[in-house]
Amino acid sequence: MSKPLILVSNDDGITAPGIRTLVNVMKKIGDVVVVAPDSPQSGMGHAITVGNTLRLDKSLAFDDVEAWECSGTPADCVKLAKHHVLKERQPDLVVSGINHGSNSSVSVLYSGTMSAAIEAAIEGLPAIGFSLCEFGHDADFSHTEEFVELIARQALKNGIPEGVALNVNFPKKSNKKIAGVKVCRQAQARWEEEFDERLDPNGRRYFWLTGNFINPDKGEDTDEWALAHNYVSIVPCQYDMTAHFAMARLNNEWELGK
Amino acid sequence: MSKPLILVSNDDGITAPGIRTLVNVMKKIGDVVVVAPDSPQSGMGHAITVGNTLRLDKSLAFDDVEAWECSGTPADCVKLAKHHVLKERQPDLVVSGINHGSNSSVSVLYSGTMSAAIEAAIEGLPAIGFSLCEFGHDADFSHTEEFVELIARQALKNGIPEGVALNVNFPKKSNKKIAGVKVCRQAQARWEEEFDERLDPNGRRYFWLTGNFINPDKGEDTDEWALAHNYVSIVPCQYDMTAHFAMARLNNEWELGK
Repeated sequence: MSKPLILVSNDDGITAPGIRTLVNVMKKIGDVVVVAPDSPQSGMGHAITVGNTLRLDKSLAFDDVEAWECSGTPADCVKLAKHHVLKERQPDLVVSGINHGSNSSVSVLYSGTMSAAIEAAIEGLPAIGFSLCEFGHDADFSHTEEFVELIARQALKNGIPEGVALNVNFPKKSNKKIAGVKVCRQAQARWEEEFDERLDPNGRRYFWLTGNFINPDKGEDTDEWALAHNYVSIVPCQYDMTAHFAMARLNNEWELGK
Repeated sequence: MSKPLILVSNDDGITAPGIRTLVNVMKKIGDVVVVAPDSPQSGMGHAITVGNTLRLDKSLAFDDVEAWECSGTPADCVKLAKHHVLKERQPDLVVSGINHGSNSSVSVLYSGTMSAAIEAAIEGLPAIGFSLCEFGHDADFSHTEEFVELIARQALKNGIPEGVALNVNFPKKSNKKIAGVKVCRQAQARWEEEFDERLDPNGRRYFWLTGNFINPDKGEDTDEWALAHNYVSIVPCQYDMTAHFAMARLNNEWELGK
C-alpha cells in the first residue's frame, strides 16, 4: 500500500521552527512535499496575489524532503501546490503550521496558517491548521508532536467533512500534562486594539498595532475555554459566511423596493 | 438633529474611482470621514499589519471631506479609524467600496472590501461592503448610486444585526434596468485556478494567477443567481467560521483519547 501524500505549508515562512516540527511528524505518516512562503506572512488572512507575479523555486530548507518556496501568501502556496507542483498526484492531506502564536477564536480570520487550510478545503482537500499559543521564535513545540500525529492519522482514517478545515490550537508548553483533545466552537471573543504612536528619526509619525484579547464568551464549549484548561482545541471551520438568521430580518424589516 | 457620521474605506486605494462614487452618495446622507489605503490592496482578504509599522497621513484626495490615507490594509484602516481618527465620536455606519470587481460568493473570503466591513462588524459597528461586477479602472458606477443610497439609509433606519456586515454586489451596467434588490445567501461556488507560467527577461520563471469561476450551485436564493438576473444582491455575513454540523461527527467518529 502506498503511503499517503501530505502537503505542508505555513505562514511563518519556510525557515520557521514550527514547520520543521510539522514536517518531522508528517514524515512518520506519509510522503511529504512542502510548499511554503519564502518569508513570514503572519496576519495575512485569506490574502491572494492578484495584480502581481508569483515566484516558485526549489528550496533546500529540508535535507530529505521535496520543498518549494513561494513569494506569495499561504493561500497562493496551496493553489500553486494543487495546480502546479502536485498536478499529477493530489495530496491526501494538507497541513499548515505549526504557527508561532494562537489562532483561536476570531484570530482564525486574520490567520495565514488557517487561510492555507481553508483554501485547501475550498479546493476539496482535507486540511488542518496547527497553531501553538506561544509567539516566540524559540517556542517549544515538543509537547505538540504526539497530538499532531494523532489528529493527522485520524483525519486520514476517518476523513474530514467536505468543505471543512480543522483549526487546531495547542496550549503553551508548561509543567502540566495536556488534559486531552476537545472539539470546540470558535469563542465569540475579539481584539481590543490600541495603537502605539511614535516618531521616526525624521520626525514623521508612525504606529504599531497592539491590543488586548477580550473574551466575554463564558461557554465551556469554546476553544478559549479548552486552551485555558490545558486542552488541545479543534474547531471545525467552514467558509460560508452567510448570516442565515439575518436574512429573514432583512426581508421582513427593510424596505428595499419591489 | 445631527447628521449621522459615516466612515468610508475601500481596498482599491483612496484614489480609485469607486470610492469617489461612494463618498458622493454618503455626503447626501451624513458627515463623511474617509480612511482608506494609500495604494491598491485587492485580494488582501482579512490581512492586518503585524510585525510592521503603519503610516497614517491627511489626504487631499477629496476637496471637501476629511480624509486619511493609510499604508496598511483595509482592516488596518478600520482599526485606525475606530481607535484613533474617530476615537471621540464613533461612526454610525461604516461603508467600504465601491469595489472594482465582484465580491460575490466565495470571493468574500479574498475581498479586502469586505474585510473592512467585517472588521467593523467585529468592532461592533454597522457595516456594508459594496462591489460592482466590473473590474476596469473606468467602470461605470452610475446605476449603483440610487441603490447605495437606499441600502445605506435602510441600514441607518433599521440597524444591521449585531456581528453582521452586508455584502452588496451590483450587476455591471447594461441597457437593462436593475430588476430590484434581493437578500441572498452566498453561492457555493469557487475559483478553478490556472497558472500562466512565463520567463522574465533574465530567463527566470514566474507565474500569473488566473482562473475560471465555477458555480455548481443551482439555488435561486444565491447572490450569483440574483446578479445573473440583474438584481442587486445583499448577503448578510457573519464571522463565526465554526462548522457546527461537523462537531458531532468529530466527537462521534474520531478517536481522540480521553
